[in-house]
Order: sequence, then structure tokens, then C-alpha cells
Amino acid sequence: MASALLSKELPDIENLLKLNPTVKPYTNLVPSAQTKKNKQHWKRNADRKCTSCPTLDKNFDDIKHTTLSERGALREAARCLKCADAPCQKSCPTQIDVKSFITSIANKNYYGAAKAILSDNPLGLTCGMVCPTSDLCVGGCNLHASEEGAINIGGLQHFAVDIFMKMGIHQTLDPKTKPLPNGGDQKIALLGGGPASISCACFLARLGYKNITVYEKEKYLGGLSSSEIPQYRLPYDVVQYEIELVKNLGVKFLTGRKLSTQDLTVQGLLDDGHAAVFLGIGLPEPKSVPIFKGLTQHMGFFTSKDFLPLVSRGSKKGMCACKSSLPELYGNVIVLGAGDTAFDCATSALRCGARRVFVVFRKGFSNIRAVPEEVDLAKEEKCEFVPFMSPQEVIVKDGRIVALKMCRTEQLEDGEWIEDTDQVMQIKANFIISAFGSGLYDTDVKEAMSGVKLNRWGLPEVDSATMQSASNPKVFIGGDLAGVAETTVESVNDGKTAAWYMHCYLQGTPFESPVELPKFHCPIDEVDLSVEVCGIRFENPFGLASAPPTTSAAMIRRAFQQGWGFAVTKTFGLDKDLVTNVSPRIVRGVTSGENYGPGQGSFLNIELISEKCEAYWCRSIQELKRDFPEKVVIASIMCSYNEADWTELSRKAEDAGADALELNLSCPHGMGESGMGLACGQDPVLVKGISQWVRKAIKIPFFVKLTPNITDIVSIAVAAYEGGASGVSAINTVSGLMTVRSDATPWPAVGIEKRTTYGGVSGNATRPMGLRAVSAIGNRLPRFPILGIGGIDSADSALQFILCGAPVVQICSAVQNQDFTVVEDYITGLKALLYLRSLGLDGWSGQSPPTFKHQKGKPVETLYDTNGKVLAHFGPYVKQREDILHEKRMKSDILCANQTEKQYEGKVNSVTEVPKIKDVLGAALPRIGAYKTLDNTKQVVALIDDVSNI
Amino acid sequence: MASALLSKELPDIENLLKLNPTVKPYTNLVPSAQTKKNKQHWKRNADRKCTSCPTLDKNFDDIKHTTLSERGALREAARCLKCADAPCQKSCPTQIDVKSFITSIANKNYYGAAKAILSDNPLGLTCGMVCPTSDLCVGGCNLHASEEGAINIGGLQHFAVDIFMKMGIHQTLDPKTKPLPNGGDQKIALLGGGPASISCACFLARLGYKNITVYEKEKYLGGLSSSEIPQYRLPYDVVQYEIELVKNLGVKFLTGRKLSTQDLTVQGLLDDGHAAVFLGIGLPEPKSVPIFKGLTQHMGFFTSKDFLPLVSRGSKKGMCACKSSLPELYGNVIVLGAGDTAFDCATSALRCGARRVFVVFRKGFSNIRAVPEEVDLAKEEKCEFVPFMSPQEVIVKDGRIVALKMCRTEQLEDGEWIEDTDQVMQIKANFIISAFGSGLYDTDVKEAMSGVKLNRWGLPEVDSATMQSASNPKVFIGGDLAGVAETTVESVNDGKTAAWYMHCYLQGTPFESPVELPKFHCPIDEVDLSVEVCGIRFENPFGLASAPPTTSAAMIRRAFQQGWGFAVTKTFGLDKDLVTNVSPRIVRGVTSGENYGPGQGSFLNIELISEKCEAYWCRSIQELKRDFPEKVVIASIMCSYNEADWTELSRKAEDAGADALELNLSCPHGMGESGMGLACGQDPVLVKGISQWVRKAIKIPFFVKLTPNITDIVSIAVAAYEGGASGVSAINTVSGLMTVRSDATPWPAVGIEKRTTYGGVSGNATRPMGLRAVSAIGNRLPRFPILGIGGIDSADSALQFILCGAPVVQICSAVQNQDFTVVEDYITGLKALLYLRSLGLDGWSGQSPPTFKHQKGKPVETLYDTNGKVLAHFGPYVKQREDILHEKRMKSDILCANQTEKQYEGKVNSVTEVPKIKDVLGAALPRIGAYKTLDNTKQVVALIDDVSNI
Repeated sequence: MASALLSKELPDIENLLKLNPTVKPYTNLVPSAQTKKNKQHWKRNADRKCTSCPTLDKNFDDIKHTTLSERGALREAARCLKCADAPCQKSCPTQIDVKSFITSIANKNYYGAAKAILSDNPLGLTCGMVCPTSDLCVGGCNLHASEEGAINIGGLQHFAVDIFMKMGIHQTLDPKTKPLPNGGDQKIALLGGGPASISCACFLARLGYKNITVYEKEKYLGGLSSSEIPQYRLPYDVVQYEIELVKNLGVKFLTGRKLSTQDLTVQGLLDDGHAAVFLGIGLPEPKSVPIFKGLTQHMGFFTSKDFLPLVSRGSKKGMCACKSSLPELYGNVIVLGAGDTAFDCATSALRCGARRVFVVFRKGFSNIRAVPEEVDLAKEEKCEFVPFMSPQEVIVKDGRIVALKMCRTEQLEDGEWIEDTDQVMQIKANFIISAFGSGLYDTDVKEAMSGVKLNRWGLPEVDSATMQSASNPKVFIGGDLAGVAETTVESVNDGKTAAWYMHCYLQGTPFESPVELPKFHCPIDEVDLSVEVCGIRFENPFGLASAPPTTSAAMIRRAFQQGWGFAVTKTFGLDKDLVTNVSPRIVRGVTSGENYGPGQGSFLNIELISEKCEAYWCRSIQELKRDFPEKVVIASIMCSYNEADWTELSRKAEDAGADALELNLSCPHGMGESGMGLACGQDPVLVKGISQWVRKAIKIPFFVKLTPNITDIVSIAVAAYEGGASGVSAINTVSGLMTVRSDATPWPAVGIEKRTTYGGVSGNATRPMGLRAVSAIGNRLPRFPILGIGGIDSADSALQFILCGAPVVQICSAVQNQDFTVVEDYITGLKALLYLRSLGLDGWSGQSPPTFKHQKGKPVETLYDTNGKVLAHFGPYVKQREDILHEKRMKSDILCANQTEKQYEGKVNSVTEVPKIKDVLGAALPRIGAYKTLDNTKQVVALIDDVSNI
Repeated sequence: MASALLSKELPDIENLLKLNPTVKPYTNLVPSAQTKKNKQHWKRNADRKCTSCPTLDKNFDDIKHTTLSERGALREAARCLKCADAPCQKSCPTQIDVKSFITSIANKNYYGAAKAILSDNPLGLTCGMVCPTSDLCVGGCNLHASEEGAINIGGLQHFAVDIFMKMGIHQTLDPKTKPLPNGGDQKIALLGGGPASISCACFLARLGYKNITVYEKEKYLGGLSSSEIPQYRLPYDVVQYEIELVKNLGVKFLTGRKLSTQDLTVQGLLDDGHAAVFLGIGLPEPKSVPIFKGLTQHMGFFTSKDFLPLVSRGSKKGMCACKSSLPELYGNVIVLGAGDTAFDCATSALRCGARRVFVVFRKGFSNIRAVPEEVDLAKEEKCEFVPFMSPQEVIVKDGRIVALKMCRTEQLEDGEWIEDTDQVMQIKANFIISAFGSGLYDTDVKEAMSGVKLNRWGLPEVDSATMQSASNPKVFIGGDLAGVAETTVESVNDGKTAAWYMHCYLQGTPFESPVELPKFHCPIDEVDLSVEVCGIRFENPFGLASAPPTTSAAMIRRAFQQGWGFAVTKTFGLDKDLVTNVSPRIVRGVTSGENYGPGQGSFLNIELISEKCEAYWCRSIQELKRDFPEKVVIASIMCSYNEADWTELSRKAEDAGADALELNLSCPHGMGESGMGLACGQDPVLVKGISQWVRKAIKIPFFVKLTPNITDIVSIAVAAYEGGASGVSAINTVSGLMTVRSDATPWPAVGIEKRTTYGGVSGNATRPMGLRAVSAIGNRLPRFPILGIGGIDSADSALQFILCGAPVVQICSAVQNQDFTVVEDYITGLKALLYLRSLGLDGWSGQSPPTFKHQKGKPVETLYDTNGKVLAHFGPYVKQREDILHEKRMKSDILCANQTEKQYEGKVNSVTEVPKIKDVLGAALPRIGAYKTLDNTKQVVALIDDVSNI
């Protein structure tokens, strides 16, 4: 019976496998008419032929294109070139160190990223969500002309701070903040509870001011962020979170208090003993347009200044005590204007019941003021655009708006725009929303500002470099009112600028002094990363390996300045053993595919030891120890198998003041041929002998650097131990041949003959071998110090080595990939990992929260058809899904609790003491052992996630 | 003197380093007003505030967003999920196996990709450039909802075939084509030289028809591709190339011959002995619109059917013998319509001198018929859109068009569109181009078709499943004329469909027979990949390693069916040594970053040998050899160090019919603890002993599989050699520990205790170690067969192993990453690499042409300012660059030679015989050796490329 073949699956399995790809002997053939139908079934993008309107009523889900999942964020962050002189930072009003925070995201150090962001921008989460980035950071991205385009900087910023928000950690005053001479007790008042004031208050509080009050006329805080930016672009809890962070520092916020002759006036506040006043009240009133005179909401007319706050109140949980409902629109809605606000009105109108929205504007498409990202959202939601039209008259019938009369505009040859009132058109409309900007017109407010000189546009005169008012040095102004800012982030920066110069003014410091605005600080920053090894204190466990990044002493100096805890010098020998290198000698690895930029998974080098003489290194060690007494300098040395040489060189290094030595018994290329490096390090007898010689010669600790190119690395560690070494460094590079081109030339190819030799592979391709070596030695020789090496490129990977028994780690490839500043990321990252261990957050893995199911921020629910079958996310099922969700939404109360609750909200299980490195050292070792100790009775089964799979 | 510090750079270097990133103790601060200016300097994206019009005159550079550089293509290809049941393929009218061609691109096998594309679509290059992919393949991409979006399938298709075109290789008839019963001499005529006919002719020729003639009424071939698709979307040489490929098969093309009662008629052709006729003449005439009656080009009026061919003739080199110039436009141009053609007219008009282009259409934006990618191009070039307008009257003054009068349209509640002729508007216009579609109106043509029945729309009645005319079985119809196709690719598929059913008709085969349309074939496919090792013939060098993909005999069967040359069974032992595995036991590697999908750089496994018994494997080997006598089956076996066991098991395997054995002396986990695997393989004495036992026991060849977890792998190879082994397999997996989570649990974590053991790392992270081992053994033991293993994931990496001395290679991780069909890519890829060696193409590396400097297809020139400084690609320099380029263009003659010449055009240096595997085996070995043989006097210097850096 043919079916009894062992080498054929049973029919049921064969059937399952039918969908599997096969190599076909012939072409495929399906008539065009058939494919036209088939493709509809598999369609995932929007169906352009579908003309029925989207059902967006009450849908306040995130609609930003920039929102990222963790997977997406990691991919995007890896793509960033980390440009040294980065245009993104220079184009960010708050000058966020974009490259650094993206580095931290790529390394899963979300606290590190959030710290970098919030340091320069206390509203970094808001700005990550609402910044018109194509006009700011993203506009300058050096990747613009690449196929993948500029980096999604806003999305990454949003992502990082959002996760930090979930950690639930407060902002604190850095205990190292310089104390203010007068104790920081001066009273400071900030008027207006929007971005400019929040930012200003935050920086003043970080500087040490203790008596800061923000006054807000509304019952809620946040300014435009709360009242005018829709929930689907900026959720209300985000705004509240950023205010909370400022409250953490002791800033008081009072609502229902306004700049008015009836309440607070500038002069009154100064008379009341305020040392300074900040005005950040924005431009509160809509521009008045004569043709709209007398029109009311009841008739169907709104300005954006009325409409958007109504939508906010009806869709933002917690904003109003009273339960507001959304404005009820229907039929045709005309939005007038082409700024960002107009597009917010248009997409909001669809959520309030509008059947069709027309955005009408005076000029052409090329002149739209709003950023393309905003326009695209409206376009996607099928808003219609009517360009070249100027509104002339609103037609009202029986007390309701019925249409808008417009005339055509035209640009003349000379660029001038004219209106041709003879060419008139009309669009039927049930509602009109005018979004023509805002201003400061209220005479009571102006009176309450008296003493502050206004300019010819009716706005205060401000020095745009310091945000100080031109007329009263105690008054600083920021945000829309100051006339410079056009975006939230510029308002935030006005507040930041004002904070610094207000501080200078209050302390009598010259305005030209170097800026010393404190960074974001929280309990994570207080975590102690120091660790003691062989009696030597390491301020943190991150050091440079003996490798290209320690080629010169000047490089080590620069590294120390960036925060590295220690450095191992490039290996040097006696002058009689001096070498000359070949070129090329360091090449990128190909172990992580065709990847360019600073994320190489490996490198290969055929570089020998240092080309510099003993004297250079001995004097350098002396200098470095003199200038950086807290840093640890380890001298890496190499000799051939000869007691006299090892004695001489180790003594010289000790005399130079090195804290410890590292004996390089493991260089995998070149040196072995001279009887050095790996030629010694593969033989336990030689290793023990050399260790004994050096132990005899010097008093300071020394470590033997081990090669992984060996059958049993543990035996060499044991030999070093027995020879009296203080510890070992593991692992050196892995011997390999990286690439051979199809014309049979290897790479790197040296000289005219294009020859090569086996080189040392480094980088995270070697990490599994490094972790194996360290843990095996750790289990065999408990408490014998190991300096961990091998593809450490993040706090996360460093912690893996620590958990496997290495108290400190050495790094090279990651620095080759980027630069010395990466250590800052490793430090904040490791602090965060240790701090989070103490919190025991439910379901978190390192700094990663449990996965929240969403697609670009839109929550994704599993839905079923009437037969209980899961509804897929393509073709005909999309419409079915939409209908179900629409129905659900119509029945729901947007302002009720569970609407905005996120599935991944962190839950603290237990708070324990924050562990130190020594507390977690080797913690994984008991779980690593022989195969026979594994339980083969517990079998795991893979689950399929319908969100990612359907 | 402080400056004499060794550890400080000299001042000039310090100055250079100033731009380097540093960790700053404080925040940054720049006032908003200052950043507003600064960011302009660094701006890379378009400046929205710039209202001056782009200078596009005579600019016919590629403007597609989809065009990819090699770097971009490799990145994009790596991102594809290679879905088993892929919607992209099902949504492609020609059913291209998208997943396969993207796999080949990712593996740098551009011929393999082109073959897959051209097999199903002979106009694959054209379609890669012009397909509205968002409506086709891309519309169904499963990555649609991911942050990176759907795959750029069109761009990848374009990229691959473009490189194949540069190789300059002809299409040939596959010698294995089934001969046609009558020799294929029947005369077949195809009318119309556009995509449908070209495709139909190509497939007929592949089927073996020898007397095929395509008749075209114009003087040039290509149909709409030549006459109406602008050069910047589809260069003329591309169209010519695809026609050349068809000519390669002997198809005749005659121009200046038309379907007309004066020339060719359907009946005439049939009477003249043609066995069948294909009609692919398109819809040649514009729809006539009453309000345009009497308007002439001289007055400023064009239809798209006049205008686009004029632009083509003036911009496409080689299309016309006469030197045409572009139509000269100026001032305002109005384009009427909202189909793809309208947008082609709009962007073309800008290149002919239009100052401003208005695209006027009847409905709203949501109703635009053109695909978004086309609309976006026009938007980027600042065309203006005027929706809701219906043209009423063209205003002519002094014999020139001066304006267009339009009325407003409106959609009623019920969806119906009405025109309101009371609301009238006027736009000044110097030219009007109407793009309202086309039809077949010429009565002479209709008469020439007599015998073919027309339907009520005046088009032939066609069976849309076979493209056979309803009235005459000898007449087949495709393209626009057939009424199904709306795109080039659908026309191509009409031609393909017609070819098959015409063949069935001519051969009398039932239409329901399985489709056997031959794939693309060329001399590369004739390359012989067979190689002999130890007297065994391998049909190709690609085999499955003893690993999870050979877990069962049914899997090996499926692999053989896909084309694998050999398979090594999963290692089996004697029944007394049977094992049970733990779970989880195979995990993805983390050596290539946070990467998901089928491109994992490594895996780690702690899987033991087979859980199946000896009898299962012996019977399976028997079955497999019986059913696949040409394939090589190698039995992998393992015993403990015991002669009786090795003798017994090796004899059983030999008796079962295995071609050879592989002795697994290298499993790095678990088995060693039972005295098997690596426990034997690390000791040369044991290896020699076991080899001797096995040599004594059996006659067939056997190979010892070597572990890389050893000091000197060569010594083990020598021991195997001395023990009488026929060769070695190198390398087995590398022992490692992949990940430890921050809570100190390792991964994979087994059982409740979450324990782990060291596992075997495989995949391309281990390739440098594999290449090292193979080449070292190759140099030490010349001609001793090595089966290469270690991260082989492409033809390119397989060739590297071959060049290092391994005649055949074993693969596991790459199959785990994807599926068994990858072997097809490896086979075409290796054939191409060997074939290209024989061509000696100038500057090529493998299948990669020399890099052509471009950004998304736009050539990038290095330009200089008046001081000779290189002009950068950002901020103010962009405008300067544009001005220089504009000036150059205005002076140039578009139709002159060097305009379209590509910088990377291949140049064949020499044609030698195509090498076989044995000819290149070990070719790299002489270049790999000791460090001391390297020349340290030749130092290379890095060059900076201003295109990628400025």
C-alpha cells in the first residue's frame, strides 16, 4: 500500500501542507478577470473604490501615523545613523539630544531615552505626539533621501516617554543641584496653565526654586493641549502626567484664577512680593470675521476656539467634573482655513456625526499652512478639499445655516492674490467651523497686564533671546503671547528660556553666563553602580577593552570624560617586540546581513598589539591616574614565554601606577606566530607559569585574558587561578574568516596579492560564546573575578554578563559602532534595570512592559463573526470588523472609565531594596548546568496571536 | 607645559574633534527664534514655505518613489516575511511568485529574482516601474498595518530585472521544451506592438512556435509604454529591452503595418494561412467631447492621446528617427480628468514649460481614479487640484485659448452627481489638455476586424477566462481592446492567457488541461552544478544538514521534490541509546539585533539526536533511494566509544542503501554527557579510532562531522583522515548561551525551575568560524573532501565555502528561517555566479554591478559653488544645486546620446568557458595564510563619497 510509506506524510498532514510554497516547473496562470475578484479578498489597504463614508462617530482612538509598537520602535531606532553633528537636534526648538535618546531606545533602555528627552523638554511626551516634526527635527534628518526616509523621531520620542510613564516613577530634585544663595524662597507666579508655563515652572523648580505657583483661568490644566488638541492626537492623561511630574518638584497649580483686573494683575502680583512673573496665557480669542457676525452655535456656526474645547470636554475623561457630551453635528460641515487647527476641526467633526466635511481655503494646495502629516490624516478620512475659495456670505434659512457662498481667488503673475467677487460658488452646509486663528483682544486682560508694553500688533514686547519683557525686567513672557512660538514645542522652549534668564535675573548672574539648567532626575539616577573587584573600586562596571578604542591615551582620556568607569590600555609589549600593522585591518562583519550604519553585529580585525613604545604607555598611565584618580586604569601587556620579559614589563606597568594588569594571552592573529598571545594562552601549563612569574613580580592585581579558541576555556581559567592570577578576562575575539568574494579574494585583502590571515571576530555575534565562557568559569570557580567581554552593547547585555558572574565588563565593538558617549546609556540603563527589579512590575521584562495589542496605536480587539469565527484583518472582514466596532462605540460612554485604560498599565507587586551589582552577581549561575538536569517532561506549546497573524 | 601631555590630543586634533558628541552635564538651551533660523540651514525635505515653482523644464530624471539602490533593495527584501500563502502573488495579475523573487534579492541573486519575474511576466521590468501596485500586489501585503508598511514590491521587481538587463544576457529556448507535434511551424499574427502582443508572442515562442509575427502601425514598438508613459516613469530603453528578449526567441516584429482594410485584416490573415490571430491594438482614439470640437493644438488644445506621444517623441532617445522637440508650453495649463493619464499629462506639462498646472476634475478627492502614488507625484511637483468642477466652455481669444469656464458639481444625498450650471467659474489658461479616456471609433479598423463580433460598447466579444473571441475560435484578443485590462500588467496577462489557450486550440488540447507555460530561460540555466565527491555524483552542491529540517523522512522527501541535491538524515543511534527531547529547545538568536521574521542571523538549539528508532531510519533511507535514485542520502549516526556499536550501526545504515555516512562526533550539548558526540570528537585519538572501526565495517564513503568547539580543528580532521575517513563535515554548531533575562532566567528555560544548558549556535553568526575551519583544513589536507557547513544562506555564501575548499555544502538555519524552496534560489544563484565569472564584467562583484550614484533613481552629480567647494544636499545649497542643474538641462539636447547612458552599464572584458564547481574549488586557499605573509607596506586609505555624506 503506497500510503504506508514512512517517507510520506499521512493524507491529513499533506493536506495541511498544501499551502506551503513549492518550486513549480511552469509559470502560474490566472485570467485577469479572476484576479480582479481574488485580490479584493486579500486587500489590506483602503479600498479606493469604496465611496461609503467611514464611520468615525465617537471614535477617539489614536490616529497618528507615528505611533510605534516596541517592535517597530526597535527597528526604527536601529536605523538611525546617530550622526555626530546631528541636524535633528539643531532643528529641535528644545535641542533634545535626539541621537542619544534613539541610541537608548535601540538598546531597550527606555528610561535612558526618557531622561534624555525630559531633560531638555519637560513636555517631551506631548511633543513626541503633536510636534509637526517634518518642520523640525525630521526636516533635517540626514536619511531624508534614503529609500526608507527620515527617522520617525516623534514616534520614538512618544514611545520612550510613554513607557517611562508606565513605570510610574516621580521626578525628584537632583541632590547635587547647586543650592540657591537665598534658599530659593522667592515667590514666582506663572499665568496660564499651558505648555509654556509648565515648562518654565519645571525648570525653575529644577534650579531649586521652592515657591512657584501656576495660575490657570480654566478648571483644567494644560492649555491648548487639553482644550484644543483632540484626544486622538494627544490623550488627556498624557497632559496630566507631565503636569504631575512638575508637581513632584513642589510647584503649585491653581485653577479658576485668571489675569484680569478682577483677579490677578501683573502689578498686583509684583506688589504682593513676587520676585518675577511669567505670562503664558496664549492667545485666547478667535479672530473676528465680519461675515460671521451674529452667527451662533445654535444656528450651526462655531469658531475653532468654541468647537475644539467642546469636543475635548466630550471626549477627554477627567477634564471636566460635569459630564459633557460631544457637539452633535450632521450632514455637511464646512471648515474654513488651512492651518493645523482647521484640520483638527475637520477630523473632529467626523467624530461628532458629520456626514461629509469640506475644508475650504483661500489659496491652493501648495500654500496649505498645516504640515503634510496633518493634511494626510484628513485626506485619509475622506475630508474633501476646496481650494481657491474665499467665504463671502453665510446663507441662513429658518434660523439654521444652509450654505456658504464663496468667491474664487486667483494668484496673479506677480504673486499677488486677488478675489474675484464675480465668480461665486455655493456649498450646502449644515455647519460651518471657522479656523482663522486667534489673538489677544480682551481689554480687561490687557489692562491686567498694564506695565508691560505692547507692540503694534497688540502683543507684549519681548526680547526673543531671553523672553524677558522689554518694559519690566521682572516679567517674562512665552508661548503664543510672546509672538515667536508657533508650535507647542516652541512654547515649551520659551518657558525653558524664560526660566534660565529669570534665574539669571533673580540671582544677578550675567545673562551671558554658561547655561546650567539641570537635567531630569528621579530615583533611578540614585542607584549605586559601584562595585569592588580585588580591592579596586569601580565607579561603574563599564570599561573599554584593550582594543582599537584604547589605541592612544588621549582616547582613554576622552572616554573617561564621557563617564567610563575603567579602561584597559591597548596591549603593549617591550620595545624589542614592537610591531607594524597591515592595512586594511578592521572590517565590518556580515553576520547580521546587509546592514550599514552603527549597528554592525560583528567586526573582524587583524590588528596586532600597540605600535607605541613602553615609555609612551607608562607615562600615559601616570598621567591618566593623576588626572582621573577615581577611574581604574588596567595595563594590558604581552611578552613571549620568558620570565625575564614578563617580570620586566609587569613591573614597569605597576610602577607607572596602573591599578591592575591584564595579561594578553589570547590575541588570535599574528602575535601567535611570534610565540605570543594565543600561542601561550591555549596551554594551561604556560598560563600557570606566566601567572606565577607575574604574581612574583608585582603586588597589584592582574587578570589573564582568555581566548575562546580552545576546547576547554575553563581549564585555562583554572590554570590562571592556580598560578595566582587575581582573575580572568573572558573572552578575547573568536578566530574567523569573514568573507571571500566571488572572485576568490578574501576580505580584508592586504597588499597587491590580496592575501589575508584569520582575524578576530568581535561584537554581538560572539556574545553567546562570551556568556558561555563567563558562566562556565563562574560555576567552576565561584568568587574568582571575571572581567566580562564579548558583544556587550547595552545595559541589558552587560547585566547578562553580571548575572553570569562578571562584576565588570569590557566593551569595544559597540564603541566602534558609535562613539564613547554610549556609556551614558549603559549607566542609566543598568540603573533602571536594577531599580525596576526592586519594583517587581507585573509582566515586565527588563524595561519592556507587557505587549499591548495595537496597530500604530489603534487598539486591536479580537472580534468574531456570527458563527464565532475570528474575523480577519483583510478583505471583506475589515468591513465586518468596522461595523461591529462602530456599533460598540455608539453604545459606549466615551467618558466612562475603562475607555482610556491601557492594557499594559504597570502594576507594582512588591517594593524591595534596590539591588547593587554584588547582589545580583552570578544570579543566573544556579540555572545553568548539565543537560541531564533539565526536565524533559514539561513541554511548551506555541500560541498563535491573531493580531499579528490575521 | 600642559600641552605636552601624552594623553591629550594636539590642539588641531582637539579642534577637529569638537563636533564629536559628548555627554553634557546640563540641558541645552537655544531660544526658539534662533532655532527657527538654524533649522533652515539643515533642512533636507522640501521647504513648504517656498512658493516659487520648481524648475522642471526638460527634466526627465526618474521621479518614481519606488526606485531602489542596491542598499535599499537589500534592506527592503530582508523585511519581507516570505508568507507561505502570499496575498501579493494572488493579487498580481500575472501571478509572479513575489516571495521567491524577494528571497533571491535578499540573497543578492539578482538573476534568480529576474528569472522568477520574467517567467510569469515577460514585461516584468516595465511592470515593476509602472504597476499601480497599491491596487495589486502591495494592496494585499500582510505587512500593511506594520509601522514600516507594505513591501515596495514594484521597486524590488524593477531593481532585480534592471540588474539582469545590465548583464546583457539573451533569452533562449529551454532545450527541455516539449517539442510541438507539428514542429511549431504554424503562422501566427499578432496585431499591435504593445504589452499584450509582446507578452503573447513571448509565451508562444517559449512554447516552441517558430513563425510568429507582431505587426505595429507606428514606426516604433511598445504601444502605450512607448507613446504615453513618460520617460521619467518608464524609460524607452526598458521597453526596447523587453522586446529584444522576445526577439531572442525568433519572434518577428514589423512596424508601419496596421489593422486596416488598406493593409491587414483579420480575415485576410486567416485566409493567408495564419493558424491564429491575436488582436492587441488597444483603444487608439480619444473620446470626443462636444465642447472641444474645433479646438486645435495651435490654439492650445491637446488631448492626452496627442500630447503624451509628442512629449515621448521629444524626450525618448531612439524612438523616432526624426529629431522631435518637446511641445512648447507656457503659463497656465489645465488638465482635465482624474485618471492616471491626467496626472501623467500634468507632470509632463511642467517639463514642457508650464508655469502652473491645474488638474480639474468633476468629483471630489475621495473619488480620484488615479492611484495615490501617481497623485502624490503631481502634488509634490506643486500641481494644483480643482475638484467638483465640470468643464463647460473653452474661451478662445484671437485664436488662442485664454480660459476655461466650468460649473460646479455636487453629490446629492442619494449619491447621484449633478452639475449646477448656475454656479460658474473660470480659470485662465494658456493650454488645455483633456484626459478623458479613449475608445475604438475608427470604422476602417472595425471593418478590418470583420468576422469578430462586437458587443454593445463597440468592443469585441471575448471569453474573459481564455481571451478567445466569442465569434471566431482562431482569434484571440487582449489588452484594452478586450475590455478587461485596465493596467499594463493586466494587458500582459491577457497576452499570457491568450498564448496558453491559443496553444491549446492549435494543438487540440482541452482548455481544462494543466497549464504548462514554460518559464524564462537563458544560458545561465545551462550551467552545470554537478560535482563528484568520493565517487558520488551530486546533481548540485546543496544539501540539508543533519538537523531539524531532516527530522523525518517525509521532510527529506519534500526537500528532494524542491530540488535539494542531497540530505543528511537527522542523527540516529542504536535503539538502546534512544533519547527524549526537552522543550523549548530551539530559539531565535539575538546576534543580529531585534529582528523578527525570516532573517534570523542565528539560532540556538539544545535538541538531541533523533527520537526515532534505527528501523525507521533504515527503512526511510531505502524508500528515499528507491524514489530518488539521483539524490544523495547520507546517514548520520552516533554511538558511544565502542567498536561493536559503531560497527553494528554503520553496517545497518550501509545495508539500508545510504550513499555515505556522516559520523556525528560533535553534538555540543547533551550527548557529550553520555560519552557521545563532542565527547569523542574533541580527541584526535578517539576520532582516529572510530574512523578505523567504521572504515573496517563498511565499503561506502563516510565523513566525520567536526566540532568547532576545539583548540585545533585541523588536528581532528587529520585524525579522521588518518583513520580512513573519506572526508569531514565542518562545522557543527558553536557552543553558546544565547540570552539571560534581567530576572536571571536563561532562555531557553526548561521546566518549572527554568534551567538551561549550553546549546549549539548555528546560522550566519557562525559563518566566519565555518569558513576558517574549512579553509584551514583545505590548506592542510588538499583534496580531502570537506562538506561545508556554517551559516550558508545563499549561493553567495555557498560559493565562499566552495572557494575555501568544500565541494558541497549543508544547510539548516536558512531553511529554519524560511522553507525548502530556498534551494531554487541557491541553484540559480550559483549558476549565475559561475556564469558571470566567464563574462568578466567590468567592476561587478558577484551579481552586483558597480554602484551607480543616485537617490531613488535620480542621478546625483557632484556640483561645486563658484569657489570650487562641493555643494551639499541640504538647506541653502539645494537651491544652488537645482539652479546649476536647471541651467545645464536647458542647454542640453535630451535626445543626444549620453543623456540616458547609465554609469553602471556593464562592459564584458573577456568571455571564457563557464567554470564548473571543481574548477573553482579551493581557489581562495592560496590567499589565506599566516600573518607574516601579509605585506605591511601597502596601506589603504578610506575615501569619502560626497553623495552619501553631504
